[in-house]
Amino acid sequence: MDTPTLNKAPQRLSVIKVGGAVVEDSASLAILLDEFVKVGGSKVLVHGGGRSATKLAEQLGIESRMVGGRRITDAEMLRVVTMVYGGLVNKNIVAQLQARGVNALGLTGADFNLIRAHRRPVTPEGVDFGFVGDVDSADGQRLLQLLESGVTPVVAPLTHDGQGNLLNTNADTMAQSVATALVPVSSVSLTFCFELSGVLRNPSDSSTLIPHLTEVDFRALVADGTIAGGMIPKLENAFAALRAGVSKVRITNIHDLQGGTVITLETVPSA
Amino acid sequence: MDTPTLNKAPQRLSVIKVGGAVVEDSASLAILLDEFVKVGGSKVLVHGGGRSATKLAEQLGIESRMVGGRRITDAEMLRVVTMVYGGLVNKNIVAQLQARGVNALGLTGADFNLIRAHRRPVTPEGVDFGFVGDVDSADGQRLLQLLESGVTPVVAPLTHDGQGNLLNTNADTMAQSVATALVPVSSVSLTFCFELSGVLRNPSDSSTLIPHLTEVDFRALVADGTIAGGMIPKLENAFAALRAGVSKVRITNIHDLQGGTVITLETVPSA
Repeated sequence: MDTPTLNKAPQRLSVIKVGGAVVEDSASLAILLDEFVKVGGSKVLVHGGGRSATKLAEQLGIESRMVGGRRITDAEMLRVVTMVYGGLVNKNIVAQLQARGVNALGLTGADFNLIRAHRRPVTPEGVDFGFVGDVDSADGQRLLQLLESGVTPVVAPLTHDGQGNLLNTNADTMAQSVATALVPVSSVSLTFCFELSGVLRNPSDSSTLIPHLTEVDFRALVADGTIAGGMIPKLENAFAALRAGVSKVRITNIHDLQGGTVITLETVPSA
Repeated sequence: MDTPTLNKAPQRLSVIKVGGAVVEDSASLAILLDEFVKVGGSKVLVHGGGRSATKLAEQLGIESRMVGGRRITDAEMLRVVTMVYGGLVNKNIVAQLQARGVNALGLTGADFNLIRAHRRPVTPEGVDFGFVGDVDSADGQRLLQLLESGVTPVVAPLTHDGQGNLLNTNADTMAQSVATALVPVSSVSLTFCFELSGVLRNPSDSSTLIPHLTEVDFRALVADGTIAGGMIPKLENAFAALRAGVSKVRITNIHDLQGGTVITLETVPSA
């Protein structure tokens, strides 16, 4: 076992986020994990699990209520997401990475006090999201220490408030927070991996893939309605990561971690 | 953050196991965690959660079947225990320890490849326990490295087989395996903490506490029926730990981690 050396940054560092539709389907998850194993350099996997949480809640007779794509999380729903994200999804990914020779460690924001958050205040419109956390800080040094000792962190979308409460936190936001926390110590890429092949002009037609998307394009495509729904907060997270110094952000699917849509703040110069 | 130094053993090392009845009740859990924080030296917390698993299974319409106090774990039940042990119970303990200033890290046997197990073979009587793991090895060096860097491991009763399967493993056995793995690097005590005040001649009368129990006494008390049921495998784990070099084993309750019944292989010399 290597003794971790701090402040010696790994050369390449990839944060890969995988969404609920992928983690829910065991065949898709296996493909993603096979691709993940092939990614060179140090890496962190951040996962969602919303669809599995909705399904478990349904089985338990708990209603899932979403506002703007975000889950209202009362005490009962917090139990559900803690079980699904922190237990079912996280630990199965860890076991399956171990079977692939990757020394994975499953983490929530509470573990190692890794990601602190505060409970989201009631919105001006009067929406109380309940036990939903907005991230305050993430411990990049701890992540680096793990990566340098050959460990691959697998991060579930749960944070804590330091007062004993777990908080449900959007997985895209978790991925962005983790990537941003690593910027001071390494060159970081961030890949959002989901069921579509990237950002599409028409979500049901993969030939409408937008290969490069700048922030100016994004605002225009939101204004004309081409980009809508859950893609908007995902892209807001992407731009936030770039503004914080993440070197490359990509939105793609499990079959092509090097493909999809490359997100940039400015126009990409032609090759 | 300290760089871990291997092979430099902490002076005192306590492994404390807390059972299902304690973790299910939030007031009892709070008392236990307050007591746990006061324990000096390095420490590991191992938890159960069987009662919460039974309750969730019931809510999901899954029947809990036990043989000799051990849970039959089919694929559906494995999902339940993964959610309850790895998620609900583990992450809530971690968050509550963080709130008490303890830098806790929740772990299953799959994390860090910490505890490997194999699926229990069908018994000679034809009982197939399903996804139940019997422990093969536990990584004491990894635990030591965590302890020396100021981290407190919180271990859920799940192992893995290295082929991608999580396995349900008895929490007393997990505690014994963790304690035993630490014997080569430290002087280790093991405390089983549950709802009774220790080993009692009459489980409903705490004045019948047996303050010291040797293996010879134990065999005699099993033969005459005084010790029965789930206390038998618990004590078998206690004696296994002592035979493997754990220096002190105790069975007690949350209010008195220094009290209860002291388990020894031989007769305790009078003070």
